[in-house]
Amino acid sequence: MTAVAGPAGPVLVVGSGLLGTSIGLALRRHDVTVWLADVASEHVRTASGLGAGVPVPADASPALVVVAVPPDLLGPEVARALEEHPEAVVTDVGSVKTAPLAELREKRVAGLARYVGSHPMAGSERSGPLAGSASLFDGRPWAIAPHPGADPAAVAAVTALAELCGATPVRMTPEEHDLAVARTSHLPHLMSVLAAGRLAGAPAEHLALSGQGVRDVTRIAAGDPGLWQQIVSGNAAAVLRLLGEVRGDLDALISAIERDERDGVVDLLDRGVRGTLAIPGKHGGPPRPTESVFVAVPDHPGELARLFADAGEIGVNIEDVHIDHDPGRPVGLVELVVEESRAELLADSLESRNWVTHR
Amino acid sequence: MTAVAGPAGPVLVVGSGLLGTSIGLALRRHDVTVWLADVASEHVRTASGLGAGVPVPADASPALVVVAVPPDLLGPEVARALEEHPEAVVTDVGSVKTAPLAELREKRVAGLARYVGSHPMAGSERSGPLAGSASLFDGRPWAIAPHPGADPAAVAAVTALAELCGATPVRMTPEEHDLAVARTSHLPHLMSVLAAGRLAGAPAEHLALSGQGVRDVTRIAAGDPGLWQQIVSGNAAAVLRLLGEVRGDLDALISAIERDERDGVVDLLDRGVRGTLAIPGKHGGPPRPTESVFVAVPDHPGELARLFADAGEIGVNIEDVHIDHDPGRPVGLVELVVEESRAELLADSLESRNWVTHR
Repeated sequence: MTAVAGPAGPVLVVGSGLLGTSIGLALRRHDVTVWLADVASEHVRTASGLGAGVPVPADASPALVVVAVPPDLLGPEVARALEEHPEAVVTDVGSVKTAPLAELREKRVAGLARYVGSHPMAGSERSGPLAGSASLFDGRPWAIAPHPGADPAAVAAVTALAELCGATPVRMTPEEHDLAVARTSHLPHLMSVLAAGRLAGAPAEHLALSGQGVRDVTRIAAGDPGLWQQIVSGNAAAVLRLLGEVRGDLDALISAIERDERDGVVDLLDRGVRGTLAIPGKHGGPPRPTESVFVAVPDHPGELARLFADAGEIGVNIEDVHIDHDPGRPVGLVELVVEESRAELLADSLESRNWVTHR
Repeated sequence: MTAVAGPAGPVLVVGSGLLGTSIGLALRRHDVTVWLADVASEHVRTASGLGAGVPVPADASPALVVVAVPPDLLGPEVARALEEHPEAVVTDVGSVKTAPLAELREKRVAGLARYVGSHPMAGSERSGPLAGSASLFDGRPWAIAPHPGADPAAVAAVTALAELCGATPVRMTPEEHDLAVARTSHLPHLMSVLAAGRLAGAPAEHLALSGQGVRDVTRIAAGDPGLWQQIVSGNAAAVLRLLGEVRGDLDALISAIERDERDGVVDLLDRGVRGTLAIPGKHGGPPRPTESVFVAVPDHPGELARLFADAGEIGVNIEDVHIDHDPGRPVGLVELVVEESRAELLADSLESRNWVTHR
């Protein structure tokens, strides 16, 4: 079978869940030929119905295979792709990179030079093909993690895939990748789980005091335990290294509080502040200082639209918005996050348009 | 000196920072006489300039004294208020309740029956009188934590204060309060600090992979270390109890990952999920399942207003909003959080109005 190849096509996507379907949709924007496979044929039907590609034909000869299956199946599926498609470049989009690579090396899989692991930093609390979106990767980092023996042409093909999907490729070794995601994803997830664990079974009147802080810290702890067990176990070495560091900090914190050594407590809190400042701005730039302007918004249809219309006319760019609205109250509180230097102008201009604001 | 007493006045607010100024502004909405004091006279000038009350006269005889000073000064300032104003009810708005009470009991302070500790669950990343707002407490929980010897009339007066400020009083003992805030505020803060601590000094290319999850988990770790040291040390017993439980969980987690005991890892992750489900809805009701609809919004003035106008016409209530906008890209992604059962209607209706959406 032949197909008109796009810039990176034809592409076979193995696994038509959230990520596979989204990759198909993103590539179809560029008219790349996309073939879809999944052990669950209804996923393929759904994904192709959404326009993510067509079911893979029997004699398909893809230029690129993207393996988008659960963590535990990554190694075997990459091996199968390398074997079944001896001309194709093969990548995967799994959240750990060294363990599947070690598995492939141990099995002495042929054609390993054609394999380049990758990992788009995008996801959703939902899963399955219906959650897929052509814009899922827009502006997101996408780690490209080639092993030392990878063919440069294969690295280029996988980098091109990330770019076609609208993401920003970030090149690193598989080992660096796994430590990086342990730091920026797996450890924060586990800290969130430990904080949330203290809430399970707590008296309702304790939980009545919950504010925005605990909600933010524990939000990601709601993630699927089965999936996260695979992620954490698949990245055991890097996760254990960081958990060991955390245990050291935790012991130091407990000891400092027990002995009322205030400097010891402040040192640990200071380190946390430095950590928050180290996170780059949402899209890779330096973090810009922001400030919030709170606006009381009456609960009438159209009031929110009127607020944004006024903010638009004032000409201050809204970086983020939060709404705190109690259905039992006539007024909601809308938090407009803007650049620090613009907060005063926005608040004053909104006040002059009869909005009640505070900062 | 005499003054026209409002429903709970005249009220003396000791400490004209964020909380003291906000209480003054909230009470002035109800024409309660408010007197302001602060060791920093410029804070009193600023707060009274904002309309939060007037500087306390020499012969003031308040009906209620609200002590709103840093944690370390709570005990001495409450003692002074009880002594200087032998007819007044005295409360404080500190974030710990048993330690100041123990201090007052130890010093055998006279008039302790007139003291009722309280704690509004409201704050801001900003501090000082300029950050004050009459609406800071609107719809927030406000813990009322009387000791067993407190006069019922004093409890009623402090409960009335919380209500006048727009908050929802939540009654509990001082001991319950301190364990409750250790669970819902102090422990989440420390878990956030431990996660953020692993980012300090990390290589920039690791941090480039930071997504929304780590940003949410570590946001509150940016809080003032000096203030948080006082809070944590002031609530040492309850915080240590929970930190001990966390150390037990952490040791179990490390052991389960080391031995690849998958059930052990899943058990801990499950407990975290149950914890997130235990948090009540933002305003005390049961948590309602929500779903996000993502909308691509062109970077033209007025587009955000047009989106909210369309959402308003569609008639779906927006529970929350997040904006993910890269200044370098022509299109931003707006996340509209709505009740789960309304997401499909909103997405379909927006699509029919030519918005590009995904869920």
